[in-house]
Amino acid sequence: MSSSIGENLRLTIFGQSHSPAVGMTLEGIPAGFTIDMEALGRFLARRAPGRNAWSTPRKEADAPEFLSGLVGDTTCGAPLSAIIRNTNTRSGDYELLKTVPRPGHADYTAEIKYGGHQDAAGGGHFSGRLTAPLCAAGGICLQYLEKHGIRIRARILSIGTVTDPAPFTESVAEKEFPAAGDAAGEEMKAAIARARAEGDSVGGIVECVAEGLPAGLGDPMFGGMENRISAIVFGIPAVKGIEFGDGFEAARRTGSENNDAYTAEDGAIHTLTNHAGGILGGITSGMPLVFRAAFKPTPSIAKTQRSVNLETGEDTELSVPGRHDPCIVPRAVPVIEAAAALAVTDALLGRRKEAEP
Amino acid sequence: MSSSIGENLRLTIFGQSHSPAVGMTLEGIPAGFTIDMEALGRFLARRAPGRNAWSTPRKEADAPEFLSGLVGDTTCGAPLSAIIRNTNTRSGDYELLKTVPRPGHADYTAEIKYGGHQDAAGGGHFSGRLTAPLCAAGGICLQYLEKHGIRIRARILSIGTVTDPAPFTESVAEKEFPAAGDAAGEEMKAAIARARAEGDSVGGIVECVAEGLPAGLGDPMFGGMENRISAIVFGIPAVKGIEFGDGFEAARRTGSENNDAYTAEDGAIHTLTNHAGGILGGITSGMPLVFRAAFKPTPSIAKTQRSVNLETGEDTELSVPGRHDPCIVPRAVPVIEAAAALAVTDALLGRRKEAEP
Amino acid sequence: MSSSIGENLRLTIFGQSHSPAVGMTLEGIPAGFTIDMEALGRFLARRAPGRNAWSTPRKEADAPEFLSGLVGDTTCGAPLSAIIRNTNTRSGDYELLKTVPRPGHADYTAEIKYGGHQDAAGGGHFSGRLTAPLCAAGGICLQYLEKHGIRIRARILSIGTVTDPAPFTESVAEKEFPAAGDAAGEEMKAAIARARAEGDSVGGIVECVAEGLPAGLGDPMFGGMENRISAIVFGIPAVKGIEFGDGFEAARRTGSENNDAYTAEDGAIHTLTNHAGGILGGITSGMPLVFRAAFKPTPSIAKTQRSVNLETGEDTELSVPGRHDPCIVPRAVPVIEAAAALAVTDALLGRRKEAEP
Amino acid sequence: MSSSIGENLRLTIFGQSHSPAVGMTLEGIPAGFTIDMEALGRFLARRAPGRNAWSTPRKEADAPEFLSGLVGDTTCGAPLSAIIRNTNTRSGDYELLKTVPRPGHADYTAEIKYGGHQDAAGGGHFSGRLTAPLCAAGGICLQYLEKHGIRIRARILSIGTVTDPAPFTESVAEKEFPAAGDAAGEEMKAAIARARAEGDSVGGIVECVAEGLPAGLGDPMFGGMENRISAIVFGIPAVKGIEFGDGFEAARRTGSENNDAYTAEDGAIHTLTNHAGGILGGITSGMPLVFRAAFKPTPSIAKTQRSVNLETGEDTELSVPGRHDPCIVPRAVPVIEAAAALAVTDALLGRRKEAEP
Repeated sequence: MSSSIGENLRLTIFGQSHSPAVGMTLEGIPAGFTIDMEALGRFLARRAPGRNAWSTPRKEADAPEFLSGLVGDTTCGAPLSAIIRNTNTRSGDYELLKTVPRPGHADYTAEIKYGGHQDAAGGGHFSGRLTAPLCAAGGICLQYLEKHGIRIRARILSIGTVTDPAPFTESVAEKEFPAAGDAAGEEMKAAIARARAEGDSVGGIVECVAEGLPAGLGDPMFGGMENRISAIVFGIPAVKGIEFGDGFEAARRTGSENNDAYTAEDGAIHTLTNHAGGILGGITSGMPLVFRAAFKPTPSIAKTQRSVNLETGEDTELSVPGRHDPCIVPRAVPVIEAAAALAVTDALLGRRKEAEP
Repeated sequence: MSSSIGENLRLTIFGQSHSPAVGMTLEGIPAGFTIDMEALGRFLARRAPGRNAWSTPRKEADAPEFLSGLVGDTTCGAPLSAIIRNTNTRSGDYELLKTVPRPGHADYTAEIKYGGHQDAAGGGHFSGRLTAPLCAAGGICLQYLEKHGIRIRARILSIGTVTDPAPFTESVAEKEFPAAGDAAGEEMKAAIARARAEGDSVGGIVECVAEGLPAGLGDPMFGGMENRISAIVFGIPAVKGIEFGDGFEAARRTGSENNDAYTAEDGAIHTLTNHAGGILGGITSGMPLVFRAAFKPTPSIAKTQRSVNLETGEDTELSVPGRHDPCIVPRAVPVIEAAAALAVTDALLGRRKEAEP
Repeated sequence: MSSSIGENLRLTIFGQSHSPAVGMTLEGIPAGFTIDMEALGRFLARRAPGRNAWSTPRKEADAPEFLSGLVGDTTCGAPLSAIIRNTNTRSGDYELLKTVPRPGHADYTAEIKYGGHQDAAGGGHFSGRLTAPLCAAGGICLQYLEKHGIRIRARILSIGTVTDPAPFTESVAEKEFPAAGDAAGEEMKAAIARARAEGDSVGGIVECVAEGLPAGLGDPMFGGMENRISAIVFGIPAVKGIEFGDGFEAARRTGSENNDAYTAEDGAIHTLTNHAGGILGGITSGMPLVFRAAFKPTPSIAKTQRSVNLETGEDTELSVPGRHDPCIVPRAVPVIEAAAALAVTDALLGRRKEAEP
Repeated sequence: MSSSIGENLRLTIFGQSHSPAVGMTLEGIPAGFTIDMEALGRFLARRAPGRNAWSTPRKEADAPEFLSGLVGDTTCGAPLSAIIRNTNTRSGDYELLKTVPRPGHADYTAEIKYGGHQDAAGGGHFSGRLTAPLCAAGGICLQYLEKHGIRIRARILSIGTVTDPAPFTESVAEKEFPAAGDAAGEEMKAAIARARAEGDSVGGIVECVAEGLPAGLGDPMFGGMENRISAIVFGIPAVKGIEFGDGFEAARRTGSENNDAYTAEDGAIHTLTNHAGGILGGITSGMPLVFRAAFKPTPSIAKTQRSVNLETGEDTELSVPGRHDPCIVPRAVPVIEAAAALAVTDALLGRRKEAEP
């Protein structure tokens, strides 16, 4: 079903933007794992809106309430579940949207699919608000993976036409504005400010790196790491593309340029380059797993746009009211980390059962 | 599990490159659908090797033998299954590969995952040979979709650095070399010939367009059309990236540039542009569904490469023997169509059950 | 995963007996279905403890709080989720149970499985308390099915050695003590009272009948109605057996005795008998679907029992403290209806997608 | 989907009674496991028809051909697949059955479900013939489990009204007629001979015991051993009931009679009785896992029965032609072992991933 995913680790997401709560159930984290609730809170804060100039001024209390799966802060083997109450909603802002669909949003497709019964307020089940429980689940996985020596961090690679030439560093994720290069980061913030000033929005690219992965995670065919990661990442609103390793750039190359040569160093085997992004045949090679996700610009903009009135069947104009992120890319950085952590944990748990014939 | 996929339509793939056969089981095609076996044979021939100058000289008899699911050529409701015998194999070519892994191949990751028990011959379960049963299943779906007014066609968008500027046309898929522009096609063939002459290989991009889709297919979150399609497409060997609509290009834009404005024409609603590639919130909008998949260059090349000897732990050199495609992109065109057809059929079958409360 | 089930309708259950809440997520009910919340409350009250002399004196406020999936009381297409807060718990009662496992309970097996990390309080995730969210989900399905002309009702067939010879009637489920025969009902209540007086408990059998089912629901092999129903029913604590139609009695018969002869009446085909319980080849025949579930006696009894002290490894004795149902069978009647409704709804939703080739 | 089952071990079954072949795909057996093909052949022979006086005189060559998943006889990690060709079919025997459905068979329900497109020959996908690939898959699991110290054996507990009072012994499965008591076995054979002489059939009960199971296998709720086993066992044609441990008998008891008291012996904990059949809370206790499956009498009988002509809508009479088993229970013994082995292997593979937090 569409709101559940995973094979050895099963995530179920529920909630709408303006329903009483959003939440998640996560089954499969082994019993006896202690969650660092403070660290989880800090992780969720990286996604929360209203923290600074480049995100939406809405304030959300994103503290998850755990309903099950724990004895104290330690997993007991039963499914984890947590909810985050929705507050500070303004349902009045969204009345018009069932009649005049916002371009670029799911308003129209949801209208068709659900025959007018969809919850239109705040984007309903399609809202970016649903990434809060995704981050609660993924944040737990990030901690679980760290205990197994695996670190997953993401960064902003580009905002609009501003691309950061600096290489990825693990500490980038800790920055308030998670761009590796400070100068590029300033340019990106300026691009966001410009979009905001113009009542517009802007897209961008997030790059994610997982380090410390053992070789041998993942499965052939439909169980590959690329399949698993993309199946979750495309569940994040606004993602329109994903590439692993050198991705689309690899399609321009020859085999002799793109193949990563093996070498042995102190008994350990690695590759001299990492064009493959740490994945061969769907399975991790032990090199860093690298992928990039493309976010389209937020469709909610104040600028006047053309749309249709579904009741009258006539063309009309629309300016989306309310307070919107001019760019969701900075807040998407921890969401991408969470999505990657969910996929990697699923693969890690699955590996155990193959340990011996 | 890694070799099965689908929710309302379940595909299971089995076989290795040099095992007695490869095959598939496909469950979910409604009873009473008549397969045009001749058309299916023509479709599979588009993927078969050895047809022309730009593919591998190996000849495979790719005619599937249907073992179940049919009464005559009509589905009876039981799972369809078909096998394709493996012939013309030369297992001797591949002896060395368990000791010295080929750069860019799954040799090393399979060795780690399966503890040396993997079937190394011809790439085993990781072989492009597994796309033959994928095409048998997808070819049936393509026929099923056509009966519902949905046409899925793909084309070569680029080979190496040669990109075709011509727009997609539906008839492109019927061409022997499926590039839209004839001039670009010639350049692409030249690029492939060059790679072959140099004992090298070259990558490329395939673009796929599904037309005639009703609005409202697909689901929110993890059940979106992007999730479904990418979960299958990354099961095709060598795919390293996928993007929907304008994809990575959309990440460079502003919302006012990227949003597709709605308009009503003769009572039908469509968008003036299609930057979203026919998908909003994971759900089809009724506009053409467009995606592109990036194929890395085939890793099997005659050129000498660096690798390690896993037994001695020492660096060594390797030249991959055997007859290889210098470019699998032309043969991947029908494979991408098949993958898309499987995902769309799954979504189409799923839509029925939501028809009434 | 173990706490999720269903193919076209996906139920996820979470919570432990003494965690902050128990709850469920239900995905797949089509948009536009209005829940009668008052009727749902009445249905849940049938399961609630503390209502009368033959059940536990604990009082639970079992009113579910819906967190998502609704606009007003009408489904919007997004997953339904509801939680029921846990109150009136006495965790002190259960301290000893991690050291001295209660015979017949999951204490010991949970200890082994979760390595001592399990939530032992009140049975944790193994508690009968988890049937509250199961009933919330199943109660919605019962309403959904009634709208499609399908009625599912259960009754107490036996308590201990007291078996009710009266035939099933649909109205039995509305009785406070749901036995068809009044005299047998009194004997059953006496058997329960006797068990309570002796600090003991007693088992029983629940019979369930689904009427109004169309012929053709369900699938062959592992998708049969028997498979689907039993896969859910064995998720109810204390169920140790299930039989469809004449079940174990059919095993004693000859084919000429057991086969249900067809006849046509006014153009409609039915069978003269219903030994098959309305299921042939896993698929509904249009006759009433009938099954029985055997409940073992509640393991929690005041009587002294032998057990072991897991810390010292020595044999010991145990008397389970606390307030317990001497017989959970009366409260299990709506739980069985809920389980059946979930399985039937799943099959009903699945049927739609086969409607046309 | 209905022809696939399993979570950590995924079985897919395909084929119809008279299609070119029946077969299976089995994914999840770890790489490096060597199948004893001769022992597998002996196991399959126990199910094969035509071996003796009490089964059908049809002869089937049930030798499976492995198409994938092996290097030599050792698993390579890729999905195992095997097919068994259908031979010695007489499709002419079955012409009438689409018009006049056989009582007790799936003819009528399949007609409704598949709109007349079903493969009626020999029962199609509903045929007992499909248990041949089930046994091929389960036979591999039996070998896999034996390597882990787990032995699964079944026996005939009753045929018609003849019940064997002798206790289960592991060696019973090796007998040509697998009843524990020789006298009871003779009576059972007489009952089968009587049914055959009368052109009738007779049902029976198979009991299955799994020994050597570690405590802690299986999961709570829908992942319990009862759920897993019954979900597969009801996929075997003619099964109408299942019970675990004392099953329906337990429903007649008090808690003090039914609870299995724990005791410690030489540091190992076991129970003094095994009324629970080795399962508590869905999870194995380390005691023998015991269950019984009720088989209805084979519906195909020569005796004249009432049915309807679906074309004319009029009542008619029917005598099922062809060569039929008067009792499938003896041949069902290895099928039940196979089904149990599949469920236990799935649980065993799943246990690994919970090994450490």
